[in-house]
Amino acid sequence: MKTRAAVALEAGKPLEIMEVNLDGPKAGEVLVEIHATGLCHTDEFTRSGDDPEGLFPAILGHEGAGVVQEVGEGVTSLKPGDHVIPLYTAECRECEYCLNPKTNLCQKVRTTQGQGVMPDGTSRFSMPDGTMIHHYMGCSTFANHTVLPEISLAKIRKDAPFDKVCYIGCGVTTGVGAVINTAKVEPGSNCVVFGLGGIGLNVIQGLRLVGAGMIVGVDLNPEKAEFAKQFGMTHFVNPKEVEGDLVAHLVELTGGGADYSFECIGNVNVMRQALECAHKGWGESIIIGVAGAGQEISTRPFQLVTGRSWRGSAFGGARGRTDVPKIVDWYMEGKIDIDPMITHKLTLDEINHGFELMHEGKSIRAVVEF
Amino acid sequence: MKTRAAVALEAGKPLEIMEVNLDGPKAGEVLVEIHATGLCHTDEFTRSGDDPEGLFPAILGHEGAGVVQEVGEGVTSLKPGDHVIPLYTAECRECEYCLNPKTNLCQKVRTTQGQGVMPDGTSRFSMPDGTMIHHYMGCSTFANHTVLPEISLAKIRKDAPFDKVCYIGCGVTTGVGAVINTAKVEPGSNCVVFGLGGIGLNVIQGLRLVGAGMIVGVDLNPEKAEFAKQFGMTHFVNPKEVEGDLVAHLVELTGGGADYSFECIGNVNVMRQALECAHKGWGESIIIGVAGAGQEISTRPFQLVTGRSWRGSAFGGARGRTDVPKIVDWYMEGKIDIDPMITHKLTLDEINHGFELMHEGKSIRAVVEF
Repeated sequence: MKTRAAVALEAGKPLEIMEVNLDGPKAGEVLVEIHATGLCHTDEFTRSGDDPEGLFPAILGHEGAGVVQEVGEGVTSLKPGDHVIPLYTAECRECEYCLNPKTNLCQKVRTTQGQGVMPDGTSRFSMPDGTMIHHYMGCSTFANHTVLPEISLAKIRKDAPFDKVCYIGCGVTTGVGAVINTAKVEPGSNCVVFGLGGIGLNVIQGLRLVGAGMIVGVDLNPEKAEFAKQFGMTHFVNPKEVEGDLVAHLVELTGGGADYSFECIGNVNVMRQALECAHKGWGESIIIGVAGAGQEISTRPFQLVTGRSWRGSAFGGARGRTDVPKIVDWYMEGKIDIDPMITHKLTLDEINHGFELMHEGKSIRAVVEF
Repeated sequence: MKTRAAVALEAGKPLEIMEVNLDGPKAGEVLVEIHATGLCHTDEFTRSGDDPEGLFPAILGHEGAGVVQEVGEGVTSLKPGDHVIPLYTAECRECEYCLNPKTNLCQKVRTTQGQGVMPDGTSRFSMPDGTMIHHYMGCSTFANHTVLPEISLAKIRKDAPFDKVCYIGCGVTTGVGAVINTAKVEPGSNCVVFGLGGIGLNVIQGLRLVGAGMIVGVDLNPEKAEFAKQFGMTHFVNPKEVEGDLVAHLVELTGGGADYSFECIGNVNVMRQALECAHKGWGESIIIGVAGAGQEISTRPFQLVTGRSWRGSAFGGARGRTDVPKIVDWYMEGKIDIDPMITHKLTLDEINHGFELMHEGKSIRAVVEF
């Protein structure tokens, strides 16, 4: 079949909207009509050429929602008409990782996913001239139709609006999940969140959801403070306005240090501050942001020997097929907010404008509707 | 009263054996006759002058065992004749730290302990000419008699031999406790231990105690391998004999990486290897070794985002008054070994020879008996 897609032809170039060829689902695969997709910094990281593992040409996008059109041989958990959210972290429920309750990093399709192909080693997408187009993060949601492995799709309720719950495919789950699954924050905990972008806001509302005590947001942009308060931030710290050492200020503000801190930027210097503002004896710092290629974090080992833990979180520690439908429920029940974060709606033809909004800091989330 | 002690008069000099003055216990304090004390690398770290926080003159030593002689006003948990092990990490059972189940770092006497004095700000020790001598780590076990806060003493059974269980005051608890309290290693876990000195051997026997699977020891000295096998080591790796990358070798040997790794050396480069050989998704690396002043650990944050945790352990995460008596029981019941690790017995007059044995790598533990 043919479908419309935004194709990243080469690194650093705007996406090109075009009609592409899409082969139907093979065994274990599912054809999905995408109704909405968010634009995430990770898509831009790859589009820009900064991602050393970026492959071109590719159809980017990994934060979508849509409807199953057709299932391949042997697919049992989904049928045409089911509403789904694509998962860049699959959940096969049978690999060593899925069977270990400490991790969500299913490895079943990881290698081929990283190579931009389906599990059988081939792509379903091609250019009008027949040139192969890479899949991206196993999702490729910047296309009106896409094919995914069955284990890379979370089945969700049918009354959930595509243009909102697509954000659960990455940003919402990454932030809320880091609080619930990775840190397992207890009620009353004092927490510090570095970076009030799309991920930081979702960490904040995750902290509100679990009854955290102080929820301190740290950002260089004071304009973000009012917005973050809507999601539960209780204190705002602008590093530019702190006299002296930021870490010492945060330790004092939190009465000895953060029980949990979250780095939602991808800055290795901030990662160190996040660790060092954690409470002696028990503070945990969770890295969520993705640092630039080759960059390293550092600290004195004394920080760890005196009881701080340094950890990380990917996709919020969520097992997508199991946890994403629950987060959709929480949204539908009003336990978490998404609507105010969807700041811009675009058509597929306007998708490059979405990346401009991201660079200008004007959007939390721009969503393309098909 | 007067007692005999080995006094560190200045940094870098041998200890001087002399008679010193010792004031009796004030309120909340206890006079203990020390029967045996181990010589630990931390004592040598301070004696040598490498410890930037070292104070002189001081009576070093923090790994002792003895008998209560006299108790000060208000002391209720101990009486003359009780057998005790001094604790450099107190357990007051009422500070914010003691009341948080996530930490063992009681803060009640920490500040004064760091200043080399008792909680009232004064020292009980003085030179024959009246010059004040500092306490050390709240213990000062290189003296035949010493005074400690009540909360810095673990009461132990009377049939336990002083010349063996003194080692539980630091090395044994630090190693075994890191496995049990800090890492909480599950049966069957594959583990890697860096450094087969006194701490590493105790990590190894802690792993054996909890039923770990592979127990891989890593050390540059192949002579240590046979000895470590006695304590439960199942595999030995000499980095000098590994072709290519040590981390990759350890990941392959353990079938994907260590469930838990332990750094028992104090080398920041090894700390990085210990983290990076931990299993993707769930591997935890525990830093036990004490690095040189100002040294830093580094890694790529991707190591944490993909599920490894970097943590530390001090005094094996043990709450001394509660946990040390249990470890003494385990020794008496044959669950852990200590005897083969006590490689040398010395008199107080021979204490400087003990540090020579340490430097020559000839001793695991040298113990001074009074």
